[in-house]
Amino acid sequence: MAFLGGLTPSAQMNDTMQPVLIAGMWRAAEATGSFRGVDPMTRKTAEAEFPLSAWSDVDAALDAAQSAFEKLAALPGEKIAAFLEAYAAQIEQEKDKLVEAAHAETGYPRSPRLADVELPRTTNQLRLAAQAARTENWRTPILDTKANLRSARSGIGPVVVMGPNNFPFAFGSVSGGDFAAAIAAHCPVIAKAHPSHPKTTQLFAEAAHRALHAAGLPLSTVQVLYGMDPSIGLRMVADPRVGATAFTGSRRGGLALKEAADRAGKPIYLEMSSVNPVAVLPGALKERGAELADEFVASVLMGAGQFCTNPGVVLLVECEQAQAFVDAVAQKFDAAPGGCLLNEGVLDGLSRSVEAISGSGARVLTTGGAPHPTAYSAPNVLLEVGGDAFLQQPEKFQREAFGNAALIVRVSDATQLAEICGTIEGSLTACVYSAKDGADDATYDAIEPLLRRRCGRLLNDKMPTGVAVSPAMNHGGPYPSTGHPGFTAVGIPTSIVRFTTLDCYDAVRPHRLPPWLADEPGIDGLWRLVDGEWKQS
Amino acid sequence: MAFLGGLTPSAQMNDTMQPVLIAGMWRAAEATGSFRGVDPMTRKTAEAEFPLSAWSDVDAALDAAQSAFEKLAALPGEKIAAFLEAYAAQIEQEKDKLVEAAHAETGYPRSPRLADVELPRTTNQLRLAAQAARTENWRTPILDTKANLRSARSGIGPVVVMGPNNFPFAFGSVSGGDFAAAIAAHCPVIAKAHPSHPKTTQLFAEAAHRALHAAGLPLSTVQVLYGMDPSIGLRMVADPRVGATAFTGSRRGGLALKEAADRAGKPIYLEMSSVNPVAVLPGALKERGAELADEFVASVLMGAGQFCTNPGVVLLVECEQAQAFVDAVAQKFDAAPGGCLLNEGVLDGLSRSVEAISGSGARVLTTGGAPHPTAYSAPNVLLEVGGDAFLQQPEKFQREAFGNAALIVRVSDATQLAEICGTIEGSLTACVYSAKDGADDATYDAIEPLLRRRCGRLLNDKMPTGVAVSPAMNHGGPYPSTGHPGFTAVGIPTSIVRFTTLDCYDAVRPHRLPPWLADEPGIDGLWRLVDGEWKQS
Repeated sequence: MAFLGGLTPSAQMNDTMQPVLIAGMWRAAEATGSFRGVDPMTRKTAEAEFPLSAWSDVDAALDAAQSAFEKLAALPGEKIAAFLEAYAAQIEQEKDKLVEAAHAETGYPRSPRLADVELPRTTNQLRLAAQAARTENWRTPILDTKANLRSARSGIGPVVVMGPNNFPFAFGSVSGGDFAAAIAAHCPVIAKAHPSHPKTTQLFAEAAHRALHAAGLPLSTVQVLYGMDPSIGLRMVADPRVGATAFTGSRRGGLALKEAADRAGKPIYLEMSSVNPVAVLPGALKERGAELADEFVASVLMGAGQFCTNPGVVLLVECEQAQAFVDAVAQKFDAAPGGCLLNEGVLDGLSRSVEAISGSGARVLTTGGAPHPTAYSAPNVLLEVGGDAFLQQPEKFQREAFGNAALIVRVSDATQLAEICGTIEGSLTACVYSAKDGADDATYDAIEPLLRRRCGRLLNDKMPTGVAVSPAMNHGGPYPSTGHPGFTAVGIPTSIVRFTTLDCYDAVRPHRLPPWLADEPGIDGLWRLVDGEWKQS
Repeated sequence: MAFLGGLTPSAQMNDTMQPVLIAGMWRAAEATGSFRGVDPMTRKTAEAEFPLSAWSDVDAALDAAQSAFEKLAALPGEKIAAFLEAYAAQIEQEKDKLVEAAHAETGYPRSPRLADVELPRTTNQLRLAAQAARTENWRTPILDTKANLRSARSGIGPVVVMGPNNFPFAFGSVSGGDFAAAIAAHCPVIAKAHPSHPKTTQLFAEAAHRALHAAGLPLSTVQVLYGMDPSIGLRMVADPRVGATAFTGSRRGGLALKEAADRAGKPIYLEMSSVNPVAVLPGALKERGAELADEFVASVLMGAGQFCTNPGVVLLVECEQAQAFVDAVAQKFDAAPGGCLLNEGVLDGLSRSVEAISGSGARVLTTGGAPHPTAYSAPNVLLEVGGDAFLQQPEKFQREAFGNAALIVRVSDATQLAEICGTIEGSLTACVYSAKDGADDATYDAIEPLLRRRCGRLLNDKMPTGVAVSPAMNHGGPYPSTGHPGFTAVGIPTSIVRFTTLDCYDAVRPHRLPPWLADEPGIDGLWRLVDGEWKQS
């Protein structure tokens, strides 16, 4: 399973084996194997050895999480907020170490990527989650004072977070958006590190542990395991003690976890693969073709293309400027150095996808520049296929090629474009570039409903790789980009809703109501829907 | 499977076979069999024969629904509202016929139950859904004007509604809460009638069809099938053309459908079984024991106990008044006539459950009054088990006995009560009766968190059988009472959220935004979260 890709299991334990964080203590894992981080720029294995946990570790973590959950549920949001803020401060204090560790484990540039973009994004998310916890706004209380019925959201229980390879900070299992959202809902987190960055995860876990101490929260609020056999992962997400699971990663891994969780009636939120189609209409190309080629190449090759919202498929409608656009993009692909990929698994996966897509009939337009000499690196690959060929096997051409590759579909006309849009799989995003003068508006109107139903976020004249941290963001989309089209992984407070139950109080005596449902909640900034009117206290 | 219980399949088609409503036309089904309604009071089979549809019928309905969905998505909420209101008016016009048909198919009293309670509840729900459609408030628009990001909910696609046996109007597949919520979200509905009330469903479908005509909505907005082979039902909920499914019924049927839908990545909302525990604390019994016995018996025997929120398990803490309470309840059970059950399947299921629960060690306290002579009727059965025995196999004693039966658990003390509360399965409701003078407050505080996590609606001093139609209602609960603890089947606008996707617009040009996301929405009464503030337009 993909969430265990890149491991080097071994039954041999030894003194360099790193401890796991269970029930508030750093302790030796009961390990069934181990793995080490690998520097993707040099392919050199790091010193520290991280354990693959046996079921007994998971079992202990689940017990501790359940007990922490009961304690957290009874705490005021202010306490949760204090922890999240203390944690953000700890992260800033440890910034250099975190950046160094993540640089060594991901190959991402220290600056701006890690230090100046992803780290501030991470602390910002934690602070926004703190704010939501403090105001209790994620609970969206609804009061019907005549019927004496009061409803609000509360935490769903312990949350398992399995983070992805590509954002060691902002989507990290013990630091990212899922973590922040779960904690804001008073849910303890059992984090499973991504095997690509165990050391980074460890540093975060240590910082979180210190912040828990400082804020006086139950120490089992945050627990960290580095890995486990896939069968144990499947058992974990289906365990009765789990409230919900958040997974970001491959479709194969996600679907296996989904099946296990579904069978047990356990909510699971998945962010899986997405090709993020970009339709480029003739009028836009005519107006600003060179500019669009630049914009596209910058977006698609950023971070070696390792973004969930990487624009993997361009739907290019034939026109006088189409060939020039393709030529410009191909030239830029050839000229840009092949980026460093996160690990051997990503490199292999990318190669297999490129082979599969070209094997299905797409042409490779790039001449194959030299990849980085020592890194997990591949040349940038631009593929091209005709609209007719695409329509013959649309699913084959929508295979995600995670990394620095993209497919251009040469679409014959607006009619064929609509036909192709009707075959697009559920995706996180879809973009349309159209003429500013309105020349493409008829085509836009024809394809908008088709794309709208197939993506979570629809963009105009903008590449999808920037996922703003905003309450109005939707980082989600129809299956199979996620498991449910009604939820988002980014955007507080909506992202918090994933980790909640809906709790109704019917004629419950006033002194027994939680504060956010009392007649006078006494919580600064809390918005409530009272008898049909939104009111802030 | 339970949603096909009580059928008399037959490959013989003939002239009395009723048509199905597909793609706006009443037309002959492609049938693989048929069934007839049965009057549960007389066990007499009705004249009219209803078809079990072949896949080709479902296929045609799905195609028509998908095309209707695209049209509905483009309509203003006002048009949807006009249909829902026209439909409510049609229902009122046909009231006598509907009441008569439902009376014959369910055995429920014409008045007050059908004519004065369930029918007005049904039209009220439709009108509240109309109001939500008109104000667009179910969309909960969120705007971030600085980032130019705008999100709102929109309809998820065609919705399959499979209604339960026990509410032919208010939860009916073509008239009830799921139907109203789906339509409010601009989702066409494919309704599968419950086999207990095909004639009632037909009358509703005719009324809906007329209302669609009157309101000028696509006629495929509402389609009706009467039944199908279980394998076809499973295929239907997993079909790519389906947006989501709402099912209310047995756990067995619900779980089979859930598995099929989950595998296909299709949202399914289930309301399955629930035992709805009621804890009666000593102080309450001391203060008002006789009153509580009356209240309990009225709730548990209402409608022959055929309510989703029927209080099936009483947790009675030992005290001086406990035996008197049990005696009073047993006496009332013996004295009350055994009600009429909905069909042979319910009667059989009830007998099996009572046998299983007594077979697990519960004593039957009632002496077995005469059931109704011709009806599907069983004597009221009160069972009793000790707390120790309950704790030895809690799942056995939480088997739902749908109908006029209940289990009293004799709990030794507050400690055992907490232990038992910790074994309660996910339930729609949980109630606690406690002393008004505060004598039970320590016990209440100890069990409240345990019950709170195990139910959707927590009540004080009140039986759970009244499910108010209110925005603050939660008719939902943890698995296995439903499939997800974050959703409700009653309570507009929250119930509508089940049938929506989250749609984000990122830098979309102003003239292309849907009205509810425009700078000036021009929609009366619409609440939006704009840059952190709820504002009404």
